Amino acid sequence: MSVELETCRTLARPTPSRILLIVLDGLGGLPHPELENRTELDCASLPHLNALTRRASTGLSHPIAPGVTPGSAPAHLALFGYDPLRHAVGRGVLSALGVDFELVDGDVAARISFCSLGHDGTVTDRRAGGLPTEVCARLASRLAAIHIPGIDIFVRPEMGHRAALVLRGPGLDGRVTDSDPGQERMAPLSVRPLVPEAMRTAEIVNTLLEQAEHTLRNEDPANMILLRGFAQHEEFPSLSQLWRLTPAAVAAYPMFRGVSRLVGMKVLQTGSGLEEQVATLETHWSEHDFFFVHVRKPDAAAREGNPGKKIAALEAFDAILPRLLALGPEVVSVVGSHSTPSIAGHQTWHPVPLLLWSRSCRPDGIAEFNERALRAGSLWPMRHVELMPLLMAHAGKLAQYGA
Amino acid sequence: MSVELETCRTLARPTPSRILLIVLDGLGGLPHPELENRTELDCASLPHLNALTRRASTGLSHPIAPGVTPGSAPAHLALFGYDPLRHAVGRGVLSALGVDFELVDGDVAARISFCSLGHDGTVTDRRAGGLPTEVCARLASRLAAIHIPGIDIFVRPEMGHRAALVLRGPGLDGRVTDSDPGQERMAPLSVRPLVPEAMRTAEIVNTLLEQAEHTLRNEDPANMILLRGFAQHEEFPSLSQLWRLTPAAVAAYPMFRGVSRLVGMKVLQTGSGLEEQVATLETHWSEHDFFFVHVRKPDAAAREGNPGKKIAALEAFDAILPRLLALGPEVVSVVGSHSTPSIAGHQTWHPVPLLLWSRSCRPDGIAEFNERALRAGSLWPMRHVELMPLLMAHAGKLAQYGA
Repeated sequence: MSVELETCRTLARPTPSRILLIVLDGLGGLPHPELENRTELDCASLPHLNALTRRASTGLSHPIAPGVTPGSAPAHLALFGYDPLRHAVGRGVLSALGVDFELVDGDVAARISFCSLGHDGTVTDRRAGGLPTEVCARLASRLAAIHIPGIDIFVRPEMGHRAALVLRGPGLDGRVTDSDPGQERMAPLSVRPLVPEAMRTAEIVNTLLEQAEHTLRNEDPANMILLRGFAQHEEFPSLSQLWRLTPAAVAAYPMFRGVSRLVGMKVLQTGSGLEEQVATLETHWSEHDFFFVHVRKPDAAAREGNPGKKIAALEAFDAILPRLLALGPEVVSVVGSHSTPSIAGHQTWHPVPLLLWSRSCRPDGIAEFNERALRAGSLWPMRHVELMPLLMAHAGKLAQYGA
Repeated sequence: MSVELETCRTLARPTPSRILLIVLDGLGGLPHPELENRTELDCASLPHLNALTRRASTGLSHPIAPGVTPGSAPAHLALFGYDPLRHAVGRGVLSALGVDFELVDGDVAARISFCSLGHDGTVTDRRAGGLPTEVCARLASRLAAIHIPGIDIFVRPEMGHRAALVLRGPGLDGRVTDSDPGQERMAPLSVRPLVPEAMRTAEIVNTLLEQAEHTLRNEDPANMILLRGFAQHEEFPSLSQLWRLTPAAVAAYPMFRGVSRLVGMKVLQTGSGLEEQVATLETHWSEHDFFFVHVRKPDAAAREGNPGKKIAALEAFDAILPRLLALGPEVVSVVGSHSTPSIAGHQTWHPVPLLLWSRSCRPDGIAEFNERALRAGSLWPMRHVELMPLLMAHAGKLAQYGA
């Protein structure tokens, strides 16, 4: 795989042709009893997507590998052509990316949970009584005021009791243990280095924790923090470097904007609705040769366990597809990041529907865009990480290999 | 892949059974508007090929990897069981092979372009005014007379202004830069070593270039040469060594004869027509246990952008297929080297049709030999490099693995 990807990258050449990669989050489903044991895709009315399917190469794709349920980050990294088994992104880094924080090479990030400590110094509530996000934001500002010489400290609220911590400064190393004991009725732990190089970072974090305890001691219920998922940010080789693309992302949600930024996409300002996303594409269409459009609603609906709402989200996308096609991309791919069956209510490992249209595709003649029909397509079985070379080839952006 | 191939090779055992590998160059296509959006294969009348398809295991094969358009050399090397991503053949070596030159281990080869130099020493025409091949041949002979102590110099004309240069002698190293500046209005470059070990080779080439300038100075318009694509020939492990075969090639065109020679096939004398190729097979049938037959016309027609001519080439092959089968091979495989859709006019990455017949195959019951129908075959998806173990197994030439 790796040799192949590397070979493909050496063949990359810039051309004016445009690739439109549309990722429907949580696209794939499972039979649902409320749908007479059909999937959401199978029940949705998708005239435009089905018409495109008939002219396209189609199939199903494993996000990572058979049986492996992906997080959103590895699923998207794979779609962008990064081997997700080789490019891990630590949880702390994802937290920071998820709040639109602009990490630089060498930053060490961790996930903060505001918690409650009892008089005996043990954790009595790991979620600080379900802290409101506004309170989290206020406490995050207080923590950010902590001063450690030579180190910049950033704290950004996420949702509820969660926040992201970023440390910036020379010689930091993310290989330290968590302070989070992982359960209640235990005291927070001292952070320890996992390698000698991380000794100083562990000291800095422990100093930070002492100061955090002091800062928060009169707060109620969030009178302490737990840290976990320390990870050091390493810059990814960008899509421009690897594939000679000028890529842009049209994604409304921080996590996906963060992953896009990680791979060097220009993250365009947009709104959270499909209309606003299409308008953004239309505005910037001449400026880039690769567009990633992230459509979140199918996933959100499936997480609520609401098959009808997922169907509605799929149909809303179908209704706007003609405007996307009217932009005239040379290559269009519609694919899921991962499956989120509404009967499960969370993402799963099941392979996800996929189509790829270009003037150089061999149409499979598959008539419907759903899990059952697409199994007969020519792109089954494949893996997300194999998509990027195909998009590049269909766009005429890969030179011949060998003479 | 590599571990599998290595394992298969350790199981190889000679038997009297014969494998007939028929490679139709440029076999695969794309829907063509002049053919009512059908492919050339889909439109051709192929009664014998379709009859064989019904009795065979069938499918489509990726020459290198999805999205990777192969040159002819890597496509054929893969069919012969060499991982094309690990066995690269440099352009200079291919040029020499392409003119039927018998390279030996350690030879350094490069591609020559006869060019025109102006009075100021810059290149005024990189193709020397479209040099006739006869003139190229005469000038090649003059260059071959250059004497450098300890080095044998071979120059062989190709087509037009192109020729192949081979240097033979102790201690040569192909890792040197081009003298070709890559554009006109620049002077030819001195050749530089890319590694310290190539210092002497660079000096030898620069001496050769000085002498070439002297030799050609009164010629018009081809008064100089440009060199590029230096590569050192390394002998490939042969098919006899790897698979214990006694292989022969029936190929009319130099490039394919060259690649066959590279892997240790006996290259049989033959003509450029199918009739002559079949006659060659009939003559030598008892002498080998593996025959590679290269059928060039489908590719040539597709390169002209002529779908009707490609159809005719496919039908001509179909008409002669019974004579090939009458030889009684134990294993027959018909496969494309790569796709050359006539709508594209050049080779592409699209997977190519494939069938494999032997008495031990499981017939797929596919009725037609075309891109659409074969997708339902049992050999889809596969890659060229996976074919050789199958041919060997079907020929009874692979022993059991383990007890």
